[in-house]
Amino acid sequence: MAEPATATQAAAPVVALLKDELDIVIPTIRNLDFLEMWRPFFQPYHLIIVQDGDPSKTIKVPEGFDYELYNRNDINRILGPKASCISFKDSACRCFGYMVSKKKYIFTIDDDCFVAKDPSGKAINALEQHIKNLLSPSTPFFFNTLYDPFREGADFVRGYPFSLREGVPTAASHGLWLNIPDYDAPTQLVKPLERNTRYVDAVLTIPKGTLFPMCGMNLAFNRELIGPAMYFGLMGDGQPIGRYDDMWAGWCTKVICDHLGLGVKTGLPYIFHSKASNPFVNLRKEYKGIYWQEEIIPFFQKAVLPKDCTTVQKCYIELAKQVKEKLSKVDPYFDNLADAMVTWIEAWDELNPTGPVPNGKAA
Amino acid sequence: MAEPATATQAAAPVVALLKDELDIVIPTIRNLDFLEMWRPFFQPYHLIIVQDGDPSKTIKVPEGFDYELYNRNDINRILGPKASCISFKDSACRCFGYMVSKKKYIFTIDDDCFVAKDPSGKAINALEQHIKNLLSPSTPFFFNTLYDPFREGADFVRGYPFSLREGVPTAASHGLWLNIPDYDAPTQLVKPLERNTRYVDAVLTIPKGTLFPMCGMNLAFNRELIGPAMYFGLMGDGQPIGRYDDMWAGWCTKVICDHLGLGVKTGLPYIFHSKASNPFVNLRKEYKGIYWQEEIIPFFQKAVLPKDCTTVQKCYIELAKQVKEKLSKVDPYFDNLADAMVTWIEAWDELNPTGPVPNGKAA
Repeated sequence: MAEPATATQAAAPVVALLKDELDIVIPTIRNLDFLEMWRPFFQPYHLIIVQDGDPSKTIKVPEGFDYELYNRNDINRILGPKASCISFKDSACRCFGYMVSKKKYIFTIDDDCFVAKDPSGKAINALEQHIKNLLSPSTPFFFNTLYDPFREGADFVRGYPFSLREGVPTAASHGLWLNIPDYDAPTQLVKPLERNTRYVDAVLTIPKGTLFPMCGMNLAFNRELIGPAMYFGLMGDGQPIGRYDDMWAGWCTKVICDHLGLGVKTGLPYIFHSKASNPFVNLRKEYKGIYWQEEIIPFFQKAVLPKDCTTVQKCYIELAKQVKEKLSKVDPYFDNLADAMVTWIEAWDELNPTGPVPNGKAA
Repeated sequence: MAEPATATQAAAPVVALLKDELDIVIPTIRNLDFLEMWRPFFQPYHLIIVQDGDPSKTIKVPEGFDYELYNRNDINRILGPKASCISFKDSACRCFGYMVSKKKYIFTIDDDCFVAKDPSGKAINALEQHIKNLLSPSTPFFFNTLYDPFREGADFVRGYPFSLREGVPTAASHGLWLNIPDYDAPTQLVKPLERNTRYVDAVLTIPKGTLFPMCGMNLAFNRELIGPAMYFGLMGDGQPIGRYDDMWAGWCTKVICDHLGLGVKTGLPYIFHSKASNPFVNLRKEYKGIYWQEEIIPFFQKAVLPKDCTTVQKCYIELAKQVKEKLSKVDPYFDNLADAMVTWIEAWDELNPTGPVPNGKAA
């Protein structure tokens, strides 16, 4: 597992599940050569590329892929003043892709992620595993010791309540990374040579009431169920913080999934993460987050959403209100973030007029 | 993984960790030939054998093992009238072994469990892995997506609060089973041929607030931290239920660990579970439990222990009170069980006079 799969290994014939119901969202600042490796798995799908940084730069996409590409000028044109909620010079901009998608499912992946191999040497079709995760139920109310009971060869163990075996719909599937693990800057600095070589052959539901660090590098979700909660916050240019975009989305998403009775899975699939980002740069981006998270996480652990929050939008607006009330004292940044959360929902509903809207009239 | 390890595979030289601080507790009704396979791993340790059923029967233990053996007559003699809390004709009797042990750690294993092999074909020293699990902290307050952060090659991922990285002491380590999975009778009946062949190379902390089905087949715990909660209830002879002994202990243990800030891990090590028990017999033992658990689990999920419950004994007595109040309406059995829980603590404190006692004077 010290090397990614080769193109030949990845070139097995593939059945493209949910081909017309899933978009692949890729934030990038460079040519997308990494797609060559993913071609057998991704080519049947539509890509939404969110170009970060200089909009005058041309991003090359390998031939044969079906894609739409948005740069900063496009985002500004489409959202007008509401474009302020979309981060610039940070991969947090990817959430714009979630908003403009018209599909039921989203898979998002970073452009430094390659095809990993399972212990038998077989190239892992990460997207296929995400789809399996999303299409099978989650079990957030009780822990199953043999992990995902819906996988082949597994089931619920003795003592698992039968009333809970139907499970609940799965909103998100969080995949992992071989090679470069997703460490923070301090851990990167302390363990520069650590590589993740352990292939853990498991998918599990993160229990209700438990928060987790959601990484945006290899992530899939059901846009209809949870899309409006997948806002990646204000990061990067002009902001005091970076590298907390996916964490923020993960905390909000988990609290809302717990409230609405939806599931979040983590584990398989693995991708091969090729390159550690610069720990010194990361430290500069992260250091405020590293102490802020000590207050943010207890905030989310205690957050309670009222019963009348019956849609993701309503939940998210309520969370924005609580962020303003409770986190603004940590730093004025959270005041801006709470406003941006509201703007995000307004923009989402403008672009997605047929979905559930904040005033409660579902489509 | 379709076969257990051979004696040769298991015969690698072994460093016996915690040799003088751990007892292996084995409930049985038959000769302990299964120990031959475990010899390289278990021989350095002291065994406590709890003989179930006919006390006149002689249980043969392979040569060279250091053991003490208790049959029903011994239990009655040692506990007097309090022996009523120890089940008869059910492996729940094993908890008597926990009570008479004088060691800090317990490992308990069923006599139909053999040495499993890891994917490389190496015999798994289950006890060694349990000890590693018990000696490293748990992380119940936030989920780490790379599983146990204390394993070699792993750590806390980005977004994990630094204030929680010290972890908490680990009270229990729940191991898993290759070959015959621990299914209930209905699942056994529906899937008679299902075998667990998936080796999941992970140990994880079960998050705070989440219950799990604890199986007693392959289990280790810190007796000083959680021993008095490891009561396996009233099962078998004269009781309306069986096969819920470990489940009961697991629910009580988890609620008390959550209250006291202790951790429970599950995952590695695997043992090779050789023989499925008779599903028809199991169904007779289980069927009441199968519907009772629909009320028991919500009871434990909602159970709150008051702040002045600062020892395991106090927590357990409080739980017994709540069982009597809330579960007796499910069946009069729970009235008896609540009484037996109190008797168990009385007997525990009689045999363990130097430990923390219910009146709060710690030793």
